[in-house]
Amino acid sequence: MSEFRIEHDSMGEVRVPVGAKWRAQTQRAVENFPISGRRLEPSHIAALGLIKAVAAEVNGELGVIEKDMAEAIAQAAADVAENEHDVHFPIDVFQTGSGTSSNMNANEVIATLAEERLGRPVHPNDHVNASQSSNDVFPTAIHVAAATEVTYHLLPSLDHLAEALRMKAIEFDGVVKSGRTHLMDATPVTLGQEFGGYAAQIEHGVVRVTTALAHVLELPLGGTAVGTGINTPQGFAREAVGRLREATSIQFREAVDHFEAQGAQDSIVELSGQLKVVAVSLNKIANDLRWMGSGPRAGLAEINLPDLQPGSSIMPGKVNPVIPEATAMVAAQVIGNDAAITFAGASGTFELNVQLPVIARNILESIRLLANVSRLLADRCVAGITANIDRLREYAESSPSIVTPLNKYVGYEEAAKIAKQALAERKTIRQVVVERGHVAAGTLTEAQLDAALDVLSMTRP
Amino acid sequence: MSEFRIEHDSMGEVRVPVGAKWRAQTQRAVENFPISGRRLEPSHIAALGLIKAVAAEVNGELGVIEKDMAEAIAQAAADVAENEHDVHFPIDVFQTGSGTSSNMNANEVIATLAEERLGRPVHPNDHVNASQSSNDVFPTAIHVAAATEVTYHLLPSLDHLAEALRMKAIEFDGVVKSGRTHLMDATPVTLGQEFGGYAAQIEHGVVRVTTALAHVLELPLGGTAVGTGINTPQGFAREAVGRLREATSIQFREAVDHFEAQGAQDSIVELSGQLKVVAVSLNKIANDLRWMGSGPRAGLAEINLPDLQPGSSIMPGKVNPVIPEATAMVAAQVIGNDAAITFAGASGTFELNVQLPVIARNILESIRLLANVSRLLADRCVAGITANIDRLREYAESSPSIVTPLNKYVGYEEAAKIAKQALAERKTIRQVVVERGHVAAGTLTEAQLDAALDVLSMTRP
Amino acid sequence: MSEFRIEHDSMGEVRVPVGAKWRAQTQRAVENFPISGRRLEPSHIAALGLIKAVAAEVNGELGVIEKDMAEAIAQAAADVAENEHDVHFPIDVFQTGSGTSSNMNANEVIATLAEERLGRPVHPNDHVNASQSSNDVFPTAIHVAAATEVTYHLLPSLDHLAEALRMKAIEFDGVVKSGRTHLMDATPVTLGQEFGGYAAQIEHGVVRVTTALAHVLELPLGGTAVGTGINTPQGFAREAVGRLREATSIQFREAVDHFEAQGAQDSIVELSGQLKVVAVSLNKIANDLRWMGSGPRAGLAEINLPDLQPGSSIMPGKVNPVIPEATAMVAAQVIGNDAAITFAGASGTFELNVQLPVIARNILESIRLLANVSRLLADRCVAGITANIDRLREYAESSPSIVTPLNKYVGYEEAAKIAKQALAERKTIRQVVVERGHVAAGTLTEAQLDAALDVLSMTRP
Amino acid sequence: MSEFRIEHDSMGEVRVPVGAKWRAQTQRAVENFPISGRRLEPSHIAALGLIKAVAAEVNGELGVIEKDMAEAIAQAAADVAENEHDVHFPIDVFQTGSGTSSNMNANEVIATLAEERLGRPVHPNDHVNASQSSNDVFPTAIHVAAATEVTYHLLPSLDHLAEALRMKAIEFDGVVKSGRTHLMDATPVTLGQEFGGYAAQIEHGVVRVTTALAHVLELPLGGTAVGTGINTPQGFAREAVGRLREATSIQFREAVDHFEAQGAQDSIVELSGQLKVVAVSLNKIANDLRWMGSGPRAGLAEINLPDLQPGSSIMPGKVNPVIPEATAMVAAQVIGNDAAITFAGASGTFELNVQLPVIARNILESIRLLANVSRLLADRCVAGITANIDRLREYAESSPSIVTPLNKYVGYEEAAKIAKQALAERKTIRQVVVERGHVAAGTLTEAQLDAALDVLSMTRP
Repeated sequence: MSEFRIEHDSMGEVRVPVGAKWRAQTQRAVENFPISGRRLEPSHIAALGLIKAVAAEVNGELGVIEKDMAEAIAQAAADVAENEHDVHFPIDVFQTGSGTSSNMNANEVIATLAEERLGRPVHPNDHVNASQSSNDVFPTAIHVAAATEVTYHLLPSLDHLAEALRMKAIEFDGVVKSGRTHLMDATPVTLGQEFGGYAAQIEHGVVRVTTALAHVLELPLGGTAVGTGINTPQGFAREAVGRLREATSIQFREAVDHFEAQGAQDSIVELSGQLKVVAVSLNKIANDLRWMGSGPRAGLAEINLPDLQPGSSIMPGKVNPVIPEATAMVAAQVIGNDAAITFAGASGTFELNVQLPVIARNILESIRLLANVSRLLADRCVAGITANIDRLREYAESSPSIVTPLNKYVGYEEAAKIAKQALAERKTIRQVVVERGHVAAGTLTEAQLDAALDVLSMTRP
Repeated sequence: MSEFRIEHDSMGEVRVPVGAKWRAQTQRAVENFPISGRRLEPSHIAALGLIKAVAAEVNGELGVIEKDMAEAIAQAAADVAENEHDVHFPIDVFQTGSGTSSNMNANEVIATLAEERLGRPVHPNDHVNASQSSNDVFPTAIHVAAATEVTYHLLPSLDHLAEALRMKAIEFDGVVKSGRTHLMDATPVTLGQEFGGYAAQIEHGVVRVTTALAHVLELPLGGTAVGTGINTPQGFAREAVGRLREATSIQFREAVDHFEAQGAQDSIVELSGQLKVVAVSLNKIANDLRWMGSGPRAGLAEINLPDLQPGSSIMPGKVNPVIPEATAMVAAQVIGNDAAITFAGASGTFELNVQLPVIARNILESIRLLANVSRLLADRCVAGITANIDRLREYAESSPSIVTPLNKYVGYEEAAKIAKQALAERKTIRQVVVERGHVAAGTLTEAQLDAALDVLSMTRP
Repeated sequence: MSEFRIEHDSMGEVRVPVGAKWRAQTQRAVENFPISGRRLEPSHIAALGLIKAVAAEVNGELGVIEKDMAEAIAQAAADVAENEHDVHFPIDVFQTGSGTSSNMNANEVIATLAEERLGRPVHPNDHVNASQSSNDVFPTAIHVAAATEVTYHLLPSLDHLAEALRMKAIEFDGVVKSGRTHLMDATPVTLGQEFGGYAAQIEHGVVRVTTALAHVLELPLGGTAVGTGINTPQGFAREAVGRLREATSIQFREAVDHFEAQGAQDSIVELSGQLKVVAVSLNKIANDLRWMGSGPRAGLAEINLPDLQPGSSIMPGKVNPVIPEATAMVAAQVIGNDAAITFAGASGTFELNVQLPVIARNILESIRLLANVSRLLADRCVAGITANIDRLREYAESSPSIVTPLNKYVGYEEAAKIAKQALAERKTIRQVVVERGHVAAGTLTEAQLDAALDVLSMTRP
Repeated sequence: MSEFRIEHDSMGEVRVPVGAKWRAQTQRAVENFPISGRRLEPSHIAALGLIKAVAAEVNGELGVIEKDMAEAIAQAAADVAENEHDVHFPIDVFQTGSGTSSNMNANEVIATLAEERLGRPVHPNDHVNASQSSNDVFPTAIHVAAATEVTYHLLPSLDHLAEALRMKAIEFDGVVKSGRTHLMDATPVTLGQEFGGYAAQIEHGVVRVTTALAHVLELPLGGTAVGTGINTPQGFAREAVGRLREATSIQFREAVDHFEAQGAQDSIVELSGQLKVVAVSLNKIANDLRWMGSGPRAGLAEINLPDLQPGSSIMPGKVNPVIPEATAMVAAQVIGNDAAITFAGASGTFELNVQLPVIARNILESIRLLANVSRLLADRCVAGITANIDRLREYAESSPSIVTPLNKYVGYEEAAKIAKQALAERKTIRQVVVERGHVAAGTLTEAQLDAALDVLSMTRP
């Protein structure tokens, strides 16, 4: 007795592990590509399953395959779409650039499962793959997985983060602090205004990612081998895409141009670019939060981030801003993934871009990373932030830049002299203005001076 | 007699060349930043001029400065906006990260020019810069310049290229050729379908760039130093932005959140990301065109690109695809510029991103490069392409993949045997089908066989 | 009865799964960072184990901890270094930027394992982590893992690939073909010369990666918290690094400057940059191989790559260059990983770079991807390549650029006329030279003409 | 009379401006490539001139061209090498990917200049370009220019910066301050240790850039059209490269493999990667300096950077860290340029990489930017930095992490309690240790406690 069984494909016989649902072509690919140790993303496998299911249904209706076989395939594929058979998708993500190996993996696994239901042979190519090609199915699966993850995972997380930031913007509405430009003391702002700016960044990010979906929703399905739709019956694509729309509640539609949709992966490059903007936004926010929370004694100490875990294996009592750090690392990874996608996206030739699996891996990872870290940032960091109100006001009042409102009374150059003198002599701006005789000379009254130097009112001129 | 005159600013005296319209702060910056030898882009200087002009008008109306001075400043600034004084903007693009040096350069040059008109002193800060700060004006100028160049230069060029490609798609509508996936012979397509795909890429690019403008049109103007609008009279921003809208016929609007608009440059990162997608599209198109035109004898030789110049200093008679090459180099540069912008865009802290000049340089260069090369690609390459129709058909008919339509008659595995036998024995697919007895056995009729193997009909199943 | 037990750390109590070897801080981190689903690379865990083992030995010798405890810790750590307990390293790679969570994970697991051996309490911080900090251990582990993987995995693979290419260079030494520049026919080369060029690229790559190790071999160990070596006994670093050298046979040495070694991760950025060059080389080679193997009928068809698997789910008999494609996708990923590392590497502040885990993940993945794909490329592609010698010669002889040697007889401009006439009239260069009277006029003799037009001799002038 | 004269080349006649030294092919290229408005870098033109000069000398000696003509060409080329005729190099950097247009530009300008000296016709191809091709000359010029600029410009600037940092490391040797990891207070370091770390980063950078030269010094010259050296006399390359070595005092050598040297530009990709590491180092240093200098009141205010110019157009008296900012912007640009070079470097096919001009532009700009900004950073920032010694010590002493040396007396967990209590109750670590009875209990003596808490001694354990 052996642990292997013999399977065959158009190139001959292959030994396959006895318990495997997959067949010959999957096995060849397992052996051909021992590269990264990483497999397709689960959301990608699920999308392949879903596409196979709707394709089987439409094939059944259009008479391409028999009704009962169509049903068996559709049911088997639905199980794959539920990620019930991920263990039978053993192929490395670094494989043939069309993803043919993984498409055949899906075809073979579903054929085996459908055979078990149906009780008669189901062919991976002739039946499961009917009306399809790796070249339209695999990129369609990328689009379906990306759109689904964005819609049901990333966008809600970004909304959640924006809301958490917005809540803090309201809470810190009256908390005045020193503005900082070039890291140097500037005129006052409120802490709420800063959080409002962060919220606006994320809210803009929601729009960015949403508009990028416009092109991602165009599906290559129906183009088959080279975009012409060879071996696809009339109406297949329209019908299949309609069912994907129903199954996901996402407004997928057939590609405007099937040659564009298979020869290029521009819409994923576009989506990645928008994710990169979100990463850039998060990096800025994470940095500001870290700096404001720096200290407790030798830093800015403007705000307190929630304590989550001991910060150091050697320095007792130290607590670090671990969630902003994880956020910044996600930003680095998303920027890196975008570079990989850009390079891969620029590499298409003629009727197919053959960097599909690496594109898939990077876009789906970026979506997941941003979704998860945005929610964590909201819940385990932003929501628990408190402000050191006294210190913040002290900073605001000591900033030499509060001389700025005096420009209109004394002019920029005299104001500069006042600011420098105050700093050099460790006096307040008010003191120096009086000392230099501006009140005595009637340039401005005491009341005007007080009004001009009120830091909170400087934040709402 | 000396070639220098003495100017001063809040830090003291500076020697300035006699003929220079600029003053002390510009001179300091010239001396402080001998780094790249590159100055601000002309479109950026023009945008600074335009902003200064509308600001002066609004300052005059709101009583911030006197009417006649406002008029003199506005007129001087309008000349700057016409790029009449670019020679007086000598500061390196690598300077202070807020662009304060260049903003002061504009203030100083305009003050000098306005004084010449007005006959009395005009102060760069107190008058020209009234109601403004570098921190809102300089990024506003980036947005105005970028939006203007995109609207009046890039988008028309992309439209022009899309149209040139679309014309060729029509012209080559019936020209059948072998499809290629993985660079290997695939089922037939038409040359027109390929050009249609390229046109679709660029048409999608037009949408991408246009939607990116949505956020770029939000202007930081009115936020002054830190986003609060300190030292700006009520209504200034609304009024000034309205005038920018009128002057440019572009739908600029005040930033939704002034803290977002100055603390981050996300909208330019977004625009750059979309330009990068266009670059990726162009790279794909340029590569396909080069390969199709390769030869004349040892390449594919499917199409002929217009001959523009001798191709080699040593190989006589050689002609090369120089416009697609220039296009691919532009793609490389735009991808690089995007990496610079991404890094810079992620570097904002608190109330200001201080990588503004490097962001400006890269985004404005990317826009210009793409606009110019798209037009060249259309006019000097695409428009003149001719097809080698016979060779293209010969390729289509010799591709073993034309066996594909036989799947439904003989199944995928038998079809694979036919294709391999044809290739090995240097026979046609038709010959092998007959030899293997499929017609004799009635699997399909001669007529069905002929219909199945018609290459043009395979392109329109 | 419960599935959890209670553990505590300096922040309080935590519920930990009963079977877990880890303790409180690991558990906190598991809960704090549900981000990517990816854990540390096995080589990284192994390196942590190795460092803990040598540290325990040295701590025992220097009297920092008791001898028997040192031994128990060293043995437990050695098991971790053999990857026997990877299942007990559950923390996400996106975590605190110092890797403190994973360092504490190692400390806790080793403490538990050592306790089991020793029969009395072992403290993760006071005993396992003695003389160490996450801030020196974690980056040291990155260096040790990277250097080990490069030395024992990547460099042998690159050598192997270079040798495979070199063998083909010899095999194809006399196989003349048309050179191609700008994809257009150029003067002849031999196929062996091309493969020699590829071999040279990889051989240069070996040098590049090897020289990058120079800085990677510098270890931060001994710097502890901030580079000063606080809480480390005299001689600890020297002794510990010496043992790492012995254990790995790699010439690790103590960092020249511990502040550089912890504040920055420049040496990993450097290594990544060199890996990127190797990726660029591989991409070029993969592209050339794919193009030379293109066809079989509508492509260049100069060489045959080994058939590894059916290429298409729809087009029967199609075989694709899957290994070059996987190679090109690895190139894209390595370029992306380098972008992530660059961004992360630029983000250090003061005494620590806190993007260590994301740096670790990307560098270790890049090494593995390049090592695996280089070996595959050698064994499953390059080694099996055969040449279509007749077709190659035919291309060489038909290239109009073979006119080039006539420059010295007739000058560049007349040679250009000859080449163009030959192409236009579909004649050979020889025919046209004779027709234009150059032999008759005695510009060159028939013998000189024959010698000049010999394509093989053109490859060895 | 006309402003144009008629020139011709192998494709026909062209109108050239009367005063232009260039001829037909240059003019065609001017008209073909109105893309960026940027020309070749001056160092690139100089390198082209130098190569043409040595080539003419060797051609004269080897009898390829007549002695007097060789001399005339060599002299004309020498003037080009002195950048005396840059105005006659009008071609856009975005042109044919081989740089043939610019090589012919050099050939034409030198032919014209040589004719003026010689008094008889000099042909751009047959005489000036003899024994050469754009395909070896143009990349050789990139290598020569890059190596020259690195050797005589960048490396001395980096050395200068390293020395300036090293001087400050010595000056600040005894200045104790709080270390910072994760931006949070850590155990003490000295300001000198930090500057020593920066110096080490730059010193490592010098090694990085120097080792990258190893491959850049390999010159493609002698390979001509496709690497075979067709139309080059025996000994030409060895002799010409020897003269380049003499002329520059740089150890150039002939490429190990001419096919590698022209088919790829890996060595420039490598150099760019090393420049990117230097950029990453500079970014880290610039950020630390900015943060240490932040304030004056609401920031860390640990050090003072020299005041160079007024910092704000609206906030009087503000001074900003403009040189570190320019440095950070250079870092962003160099990272972007590296991305462009990587993409371009990966795009070679067969016998030539046809992205040479864009590679040239980016590498030469990166070198210049880094050279200039490093020197500025040294002279206008680092050299003038002063320390706020009292504030620095105050920070060090207030950091809760100074509890760390007590680990060995009380263990990590009790030390954590001490640190947290001190922070919560605003007491010193010393106070809390005594209060919690550790001295009373004899865990450690007062003297041991004092020694343990001495912040300066913590920096030199």
